[in-house]
Amino acid sequence: MPLHPDRLLPADPATRAIARELYRAVADLPIVSPHGHTDPRWWGENPAFANPAELFVIPDHYVLRMLVSQGIAYEALGIGEGAQADPRTIWRTFAANYHLFQGTPSRLWIDHSLEAVFGLEQRLSPSNADAYYDAIAEKLAQPEYRPRALYDRFRIEVIATTDSALDDLRYHQMAKDSGWTGRVLPTYRPDAVIDPETDGFEDNLDRLGEITGCDTGTWQGYLDAHRSRRAFFKSMGATATDHGHPTPQTANLGAEDASRLFDRVRRGKASAEDAERFRAQMLTEMARMSVEDGLVMQLHPGSFRSHSPHVLKHYGRDRGFDIPVPVSFTVALKPLLDVVGMDPRMRLILFTLDEATYARELAPLAGAYPALRLGPPWWFQDSFEGIRRFRERATETAGFMNTVGFNDDTRALCSIPARHDVSRRTDAAFLADLVTSHRLDEAEAHELAPRLAGDLARDGYRLNAPA
Amino acid sequence: MPLHPDRLLPADPATRAIARELYRAVADLPIVSPHGHTDPRWWGENPAFANPAELFVIPDHYVLRMLVSQGIAYEALGIGEGAQADPRTIWRTFAANYHLFQGTPSRLWIDHSLEAVFGLEQRLSPSNADAYYDAIAEKLAQPEYRPRALYDRFRIEVIATTDSALDDLRYHQMAKDSGWTGRVLPTYRPDAVIDPETDGFEDNLDRLGEITGCDTGTWQGYLDAHRSRRAFFKSMGATATDHGHPTPQTANLGAEDASRLFDRVRRGKASAEDAERFRAQMLTEMARMSVEDGLVMQLHPGSFRSHSPHVLKHYGRDRGFDIPVPVSFTVALKPLLDVVGMDPRMRLILFTLDEATYARELAPLAGAYPALRLGPPWWFQDSFEGIRRFRERATETAGFMNTVGFNDDTRALCSIPARHDVSRRTDAAFLADLVTSHRLDEAEAHELAPRLAGDLARDGYRLNAPA
Amino acid sequence: MPLHPDRLLPADPATRAIARELYRAVADLPIVSPHGHTDPRWWGENPAFANPAELFVIPDHYVLRMLVSQGIAYEALGIGEGAQADPRTIWRTFAANYHLFQGTPSRLWIDHSLEAVFGLEQRLSPSNADAYYDAIAEKLAQPEYRPRALYDRFRIEVIATTDSALDDLRYHQMAKDSGWTGRVLPTYRPDAVIDPETDGFEDNLDRLGEITGCDTGTWQGYLDAHRSRRAFFKSMGATATDHGHPTPQTANLGAEDASRLFDRVRRGKASAEDAERFRAQMLTEMARMSVEDGLVMQLHPGSFRSHSPHVLKHYGRDRGFDIPVPVSFTVALKPLLDVVGMDPRMRLILFTLDEATYARELAPLAGAYPALRLGPPWWFQDSFEGIRRFRERATETAGFMNTVGFNDDTRALCSIPARHDVSRRTDAAFLADLVTSHRLDEAEAHELAPRLAGDLARDGYRLNAPA
Repeated sequence: MPLHPDRLLPADPATRAIARELYRAVADLPIVSPHGHTDPRWWGENPAFANPAELFVIPDHYVLRMLVSQGIAYEALGIGEGAQADPRTIWRTFAANYHLFQGTPSRLWIDHSLEAVFGLEQRLSPSNADAYYDAIAEKLAQPEYRPRALYDRFRIEVIATTDSALDDLRYHQMAKDSGWTGRVLPTYRPDAVIDPETDGFEDNLDRLGEITGCDTGTWQGYLDAHRSRRAFFKSMGATATDHGHPTPQTANLGAEDASRLFDRVRRGKASAEDAERFRAQMLTEMARMSVEDGLVMQLHPGSFRSHSPHVLKHYGRDRGFDIPVPVSFTVALKPLLDVVGMDPRMRLILFTLDEATYARELAPLAGAYPALRLGPPWWFQDSFEGIRRFRERATETAGFMNTVGFNDDTRALCSIPARHDVSRRTDAAFLADLVTSHRLDEAEAHELAPRLAGDLARDGYRLNAPA
Repeated sequence: MPLHPDRLLPADPATRAIARELYRAVADLPIVSPHGHTDPRWWGENPAFANPAELFVIPDHYVLRMLVSQGIAYEALGIGEGAQADPRTIWRTFAANYHLFQGTPSRLWIDHSLEAVFGLEQRLSPSNADAYYDAIAEKLAQPEYRPRALYDRFRIEVIATTDSALDDLRYHQMAKDSGWTGRVLPTYRPDAVIDPETDGFEDNLDRLGEITGCDTGTWQGYLDAHRSRRAFFKSMGATATDHGHPTPQTANLGAEDASRLFDRVRRGKASAEDAERFRAQMLTEMARMSVEDGLVMQLHPGSFRSHSPHVLKHYGRDRGFDIPVPVSFTVALKPLLDVVGMDPRMRLILFTLDEATYARELAPLAGAYPALRLGPPWWFQDSFEGIRRFRERATETAGFMNTVGFNDDTRALCSIPARHDVSRRTDAAFLADLVTSHRLDEAEAHELAPRLAGDLARDGYRLNAPA
Repeated sequence: MPLHPDRLLPADPATRAIARELYRAVADLPIVSPHGHTDPRWWGENPAFANPAELFVIPDHYVLRMLVSQGIAYEALGIGEGAQADPRTIWRTFAANYHLFQGTPSRLWIDHSLEAVFGLEQRLSPSNADAYYDAIAEKLAQPEYRPRALYDRFRIEVIATTDSALDDLRYHQMAKDSGWTGRVLPTYRPDAVIDPETDGFEDNLDRLGEITGCDTGTWQGYLDAHRSRRAFFKSMGATATDHGHPTPQTANLGAEDASRLFDRVRRGKASAEDAERFRAQMLTEMARMSVEDGLVMQLHPGSFRSHSPHVLKHYGRDRGFDIPVPVSFTVALKPLLDVVGMDPRMRLILFTLDEATYARELAPLAGAYPALRLGPPWWFQDSFEGIRRFRERATETAGFMNTVGFNDDTRALCSIPARHDVSRRTDAAFLADLVTSHRLDEAEAHELAPRLAGDLARDGYRLNAPA
């Protein structure tokens, strides 16, 4: 029985009772998932998942990295040349090492998924690994376990994917055309046509020109191409853009300087400094376009992607080797904020992996600039302790209304209800603490709980706007 | 009934009982307020406050920034060209948005002020906004609500203001001459004649020369002018100086280098690097003078003042747009500490907005150098969670005796008892946790509570010295 | 009665009951102490400790710095020219100021030592200072209070010292030769022959050449000399090396660049930049040798040693004036990790004094790279709050298995059982919280507690390998 009904609620009995009521009131609310990485093909083609290993192990970089950190080879997890091809063997390796996840959110998510999605109530272990494999595999073959059925079963109200600027969004179109009523929104993620240090950057810009009919050989044509793609994404339902830059540096160059910088970048002549300046300038350009077209802007800075060249070369990207670096926003964001920070039409949602910024910079910034909102804990911090630290450090300065609820930021479909459940429980626990310490009335906590569970995300991402 | 008698005390019943006793023992102790920003005119002229909006909304940058961050214009809050002129309308806007302060210290302070100062026991809301406005306005017209009466009612024992080096301290003199028995001390804050990047810096130095009769055209004359002003401030009761530098950088240049640097600065030829070096050098000069004249030195570094040029231009300074930056003390303070760090006559109180420095640098520094003490959480952190984090991170390395109790650091008169109350409750909760976990005897906690509530401030700021 | 049986356990009664059981199960387990600074002479010669002041006050930099920070002169503590020579007078000074340690781990350690080692159950105070002095002094004269007897009484299973690369390990040899069964391991700490900024660096390299017969005038000879010393240390039982660099910077220069850099360093021509690059390169060289010889590598970066030149000059090193600086590992460790990070033979244990790195960098790195493990909280953080913060911030991302249990890192012999006791209690409290919040089953917590108390240290430091 891994899933206790009181999990993550406060230890003190009186506080726990308050938290239980708060949680009960939001436990079954629909899921609003405005930022994530589910595969659009799932929604367009609604395929069956292949097997338990491909559902739980291979695509989850949290799972991979923990196993690898303890000496298990990627090959044993089905990745790389000569990798293990038998999914059952991979699953057994996973089960044999499931104890490694003690104390981690992965364990909470997987326990929750096994029980809530597949009805498997004992903790995964070597002794039940085969039986669980069979049970899951059998269910994956049933229509009730295809993506769209899970969407309904998870009570997802809306879910956003994250899509390359060059993507034709065919699966989004397919989902629409199919008559399915699920709401799946693309998100404009133009990193590959903005970051000059991306592999194939120049080809990407050629491609961007072909797709849009704009002359991406010139600065103005390049900006027009972005406008064109943003309009297309918006027509397909997008309400937001997302930017995964190494730093939050922004710039606001004069038109001529920007144009000259673009020329160097376009001709592959960009120095590392040029590349950083170009990314910086483009954040401000994206912000200007957001003011025009109303797309909410998201910034996810401060991750050193694919830190191990060995892992990158042999096993690829998103294998668990993206490592955070220190980040500071105050000076870095100023050029952008000087342009759009006070503009009521602008909305920029800030994320961080450097928790030192919560109380020091992010809460003070979002607690002042009308354009800013704080995204929930991202990635390594979308966990009980992580969400707790976020609330404790951000709330006193930014309040609740400058935050945008929770988003699951995941490519692991079955973990979505589990993650939102962790978020709702952690917020219920936090609110209950405020009530017990008489910082908040119980009635206020009951007003806030559903806001944190959904309304703030709907509002923050402008999801209520007519489609 | 917003003010529960157990607010901010621990959830665990046994711990709460201990905390309640600790709090009870200090709740009514006099307020020692050695650092703050009340208006000296209040103490000199003892005027009536104009209206509720001017008391609670317009001067409080915490209140302003939260309202602005949610899209309310400064103009609607009575600030800027063409601003709303009717204080009742401003008050209504405030009341209509009072929910934005849920979970923030502003809410605790304002709830406390409304109840404890004005006897208004329901939470502020649109429905009682007008009645509250009338009730407060009526009281503000009474002599019992003038500043000096509030000083007595709040049981303030001593309060320090923060004053420009160029200030003639006329209101302090007026307060003395009036025969009023309140103790209001000026604090020497020479930023405007030390920071070459201040607007009007050269004029300020001319003015400093005129006031002191020293030749502020030379390095030695300039230093003498500081000595003269410090002596004047001291004669008016000052026990401390305060320095609001962008960084904690210090320097200890040779006499010739310092003199040459001053010459560049004096002639308006200072580069940004010169300006930083000059501020750095002046911290060490101020420290040397502190050794001579015994004034306690305070350093408040790490705030990017007036981050938004738009807000600065249209609405002025201190409107909620001062944003922290990362700070490191260890290397930056070394030049100064090499000079005065081991000197028993020196006292330097360090403040920070970057909580990462508490355990990493500030507690180790203050737990070693006899010259150093730790100021309480400053600004965004003078809150329940903020004080808690300070105690948890600083105490194990610096102990209690290297801290200087609480100071309210506010320009909001009515929030002073509320802030000290939050501090006393939070410290009672922290001490009670130490008792419950048997890290401290209950008798020791009862000895410590009044020290944290007043004695450490009296000692830290040398307030017990004969006036 | 300073030592309450429930000290450091959670306040909530149900959680405390769980923690109590967890603690009871590990309280009496043997002590594994794989990193520390006890004096090898104690183990070789087994001398009596001279007096209470030399046992508790003079060698403990935590005790010294706190007393000094409050204005007590080193001289009064028996250190420096013309220092107090009477140990009883020093002890009285300590006792008179024992309240300064309220809320600090020093207080917990000393209370514990006095009671558990000397049977003194009242808290130290001026009134019992003389009686305590006599009682301790009397016991120190008894054979039961000599180091080896204390080793047995403390149930130490193995203890590592930290030794210069130039040390002949004579006391380790003496301990072996004596037939004593205690297990005392040296640790290879080559800072003095790696850091070009060490006083006497060139002489040290000459000496290294003499000892090893290698030509330390050449890069290859110098590396061979390290190999030789490492082999010697290993033959004497060492399982680990330790590196106390100012920063975690690593480098991976080509052979020629490295050789040229060595030449500059060897001839005393190294710039500050060269020195940093040389230290950086040597971390990678040490890592390569660890892959060859299997010695576990430890890195302790980020301390500004002997911050006060006055203290260094008059009172020496390790007097409480080592102050942390900000640290970042992600970029700094990359050159080393590119070489050995994925190698299953490599083990690098990372320590930090900058807690901002726990969740941001260390847990993500150790939760991915098989070569990495996280050392316990170091120095200022080996305390209740410090260990707690470490577990809360590291566990969710790195799990438990990427940590290496506790080590006491101390030169204070009597504090060793006290420190391990604090660690075991704090971990019991943390595990109990996980159980109460249903993040862990109680049975799992009971499996984990002894791992945290010993197994992870045995495994992490490869202490189970045949001697």
